[in-house]
Amino acid sequence: MPSLLIRNIGTLVQAETAPRPFVAGAAMQELPVLENAYLLAEAGRIAAFGPMAQCPERADEVVDAAGRMLFPSWCDSHTHLVFAASREAEFVDRIKGLSYEEIARRGGGILNSARRLRETPQEELLQSAYGRLLEIQGFGSGAVEIKSGYGLDVESELKMLRVIRKLQSLTDMPVRATFLGAHALPPEYRDNREGYIRLIIDEMLPRIAAEGLADYIDAFCEKGFFTVGETARLIEAGARYGLKAKVHTNQFNCLGGIQACVERGALSVDHLEVVNDEEVEVLKRGNTMPTLLPSAPFFIGGHYQPARRLIDAGLPVALATDYNPGTTPSGRMQFVLSLACIKCRMTPEEAINAATLNGARAMELENTHGSVAIGKAASFFLTRPIPSVAYLPYAFGADLVEQAFINGKRVADKR
Amino acid sequence: MPSLLIRNIGTLVQAETAPRPFVAGAAMQELPVLENAYLLAEAGRIAAFGPMAQCPERADEVVDAAGRMLFPSWCDSHTHLVFAASREAEFVDRIKGLSYEEIARRGGGILNSARRLRETPQEELLQSAYGRLLEIQGFGSGAVEIKSGYGLDVESELKMLRVIRKLQSLTDMPVRATFLGAHALPPEYRDNREGYIRLIIDEMLPRIAAEGLADYIDAFCEKGFFTVGETARLIEAGARYGLKAKVHTNQFNCLGGIQACVERGALSVDHLEVVNDEEVEVLKRGNTMPTLLPSAPFFIGGHYQPARRLIDAGLPVALATDYNPGTTPSGRMQFVLSLACIKCRMTPEEAINAATLNGARAMELENTHGSVAIGKAASFFLTRPIPSVAYLPYAFGADLVEQAFINGKRVADKR
Repeated sequence: MPSLLIRNIGTLVQAETAPRPFVAGAAMQELPVLENAYLLAEAGRIAAFGPMAQCPERADEVVDAAGRMLFPSWCDSHTHLVFAASREAEFVDRIKGLSYEEIARRGGGILNSARRLRETPQEELLQSAYGRLLEIQGFGSGAVEIKSGYGLDVESELKMLRVIRKLQSLTDMPVRATFLGAHALPPEYRDNREGYIRLIIDEMLPRIAAEGLADYIDAFCEKGFFTVGETARLIEAGARYGLKAKVHTNQFNCLGGIQACVERGALSVDHLEVVNDEEVEVLKRGNTMPTLLPSAPFFIGGHYQPARRLIDAGLPVALATDYNPGTTPSGRMQFVLSLACIKCRMTPEEAINAATLNGARAMELENTHGSVAIGKAASFFLTRPIPSVAYLPYAFGADLVEQAFINGKRVADKR
Repeated sequence: MPSLLIRNIGTLVQAETAPRPFVAGAAMQELPVLENAYLLAEAGRIAAFGPMAQCPERADEVVDAAGRMLFPSWCDSHTHLVFAASREAEFVDRIKGLSYEEIARRGGGILNSARRLRETPQEELLQSAYGRLLEIQGFGSGAVEIKSGYGLDVESELKMLRVIRKLQSLTDMPVRATFLGAHALPPEYRDNREGYIRLIIDEMLPRIAAEGLADYIDAFCEKGFFTVGETARLIEAGARYGLKAKVHTNQFNCLGGIQACVERGALSVDHLEVVNDEEVEVLKRGNTMPTLLPSAPFFIGGHYQPARRLIDAGLPVALATDYNPGTTPSGRMQFVLSLACIKCRMTPEEAINAATLNGARAMELENTHGSVAIGKAASFFLTRPIPSVAYLPYAFGADLVEQAFINGKRVADKR
């Protein structure tokens, strides 16, 4: 595999000499940078970086960054980017004043995606999802988590997870697969909640484990979806197959989901539009990554995540897109950073840490992704000429990723 | 000039057989489209369009749209895209809790831009502004208005307007120049408001008129900026030199700016975050285009524009970016449409009409731009494959412009 040398990097962002597994609290404001630098990639990994004065003389491919900034690739730890169809008709229904409940009664929402997904052949799902994967590569993402949860029956959930595994075989970026059978109660189990929970635990999980189709388990812990008790059972069932939990909770209500997840060692709790003081304390006692998805309240309304309160309490936070056809039809991480700064009052440095190092942690990729460190994947992007790190979230409508690389290979070039 | 034929257009949007000068009220919901169509451009104008069955056999250049959608170029009728420097440091100050007043006391805001602009050579301003013009071409814009207002002294305002005129000589897209001497009171007139108004009327305007540097006059009618009475005097002074008015008003307060503008036949009133019932009635009696800039409240907070109330009262509205370094560091019209739909509850059809036909009207370009009609400029863009017109504002983070054309010439190609 050819070596790659990036010369004349104006600012090398998130350049770590002593790698950190994640950053929390006041340390989220610390963003190590190196000015006027080079980076050398060998065999897909970062072999060296440092000041231009120490730049190696040759490599198989040499790129002159001409003063541009280099960022480690975004680590997008929460997406639903395998889906059968967009849902802009529901978007128009909402503009016209229909409530979620009315839209759901008309067959909208997650169950709309489930109906469409069940009808769609695996190959077609793969093709459209691969298009989205290429799209987010162009946005600078270099590691991604993707959930099932639009199948809601045994074969359709397996179909989705197989698509996610096939995606992994088509790209060098790590693709984490999360089993989200408990995304919504499918219509055929409307009057039999327990039956669906048992289907997940007794039929879906064993088959998924046997085929090695998932890395994590998830559930939508929310009024009208799954209870805290059900979520706890699902986390425990997943654990029996070695699947750690990444859980949708506290999007609309504080029900105790955070507590149930932290107690059971969940890897992350995601959404967190509403968080009470007790939950902040629970998070402080655990090792679960609070993961914020500000695109969802941007698109469907509601509260932006209380990032300031979490960080000021000493916690880490990660940022992710939530890319999905219902509540976030966007995979653009740069815009998530803009929302985090504009709406959640995170500083640019905090947002960058949340979208790189802490995002990697929320996928157990902190040893290989999320920063520029010797031995980590050579996955990064060069920006268009920008005057400062803060410009990136500030210029909320601009396309600032000019060239993107995954494992030392150029995957997008917008020059 | 070579002819250009676009074949196999899946949906030709805003295809007018009987051109309308603008659309208002319920008619804003009407978006004429033609499925499976062609478009022929000759000498930079639209020579013919119609169903594929009637497609001409040849042209100098033939583009197969392969089912993609064709939209007329966006008409962005309110920008400040000539400026000397970005202002992300103030963005960070706001995140850290500083108020506008504090930022202004530290030399921030419009006066920050003015200080930087005065120091910057004309050639350098031209170069950076031309980069932004190319950027918005890539976003699908095909006509733009640009304001002065960061000079605030005679020579610096003239410098800005000369840059805008030079930009017109570098592009085929119409570039309208608006003189905004009354953007803020410059520090040297802090204790002499009347002196600055007289400077604008007695010195700036005659020289601008003599050099033919402006098409329109503008003022920032707002508490802490210029009063309704001053705004009225400036509109009248501009009229003596043949400059119609496009006025910043009702961004934070209802002071009577709309009334003063409509009475004096202003071309547009822009911002309108706050509008009272009396002002809606005043607008209904006049011919002034209400122009909404939802990116500003998105970025700095405050109320989104009451588009629903205006349209439901039978009024037209236009949408524009407000591209500027302080309150809207974005020239992306597609995102303005997303905000209009998500936050102002405009339907996709209304937003498209507002960003094309009504935007053209707000720059007196309705006879040459803003729709697909015989004889109008061949300025349009082809989208990436999208399933419906509504998908465009729905997919708020996507880059949907694939190829852009101005006067029949390709100016952006992202295939």
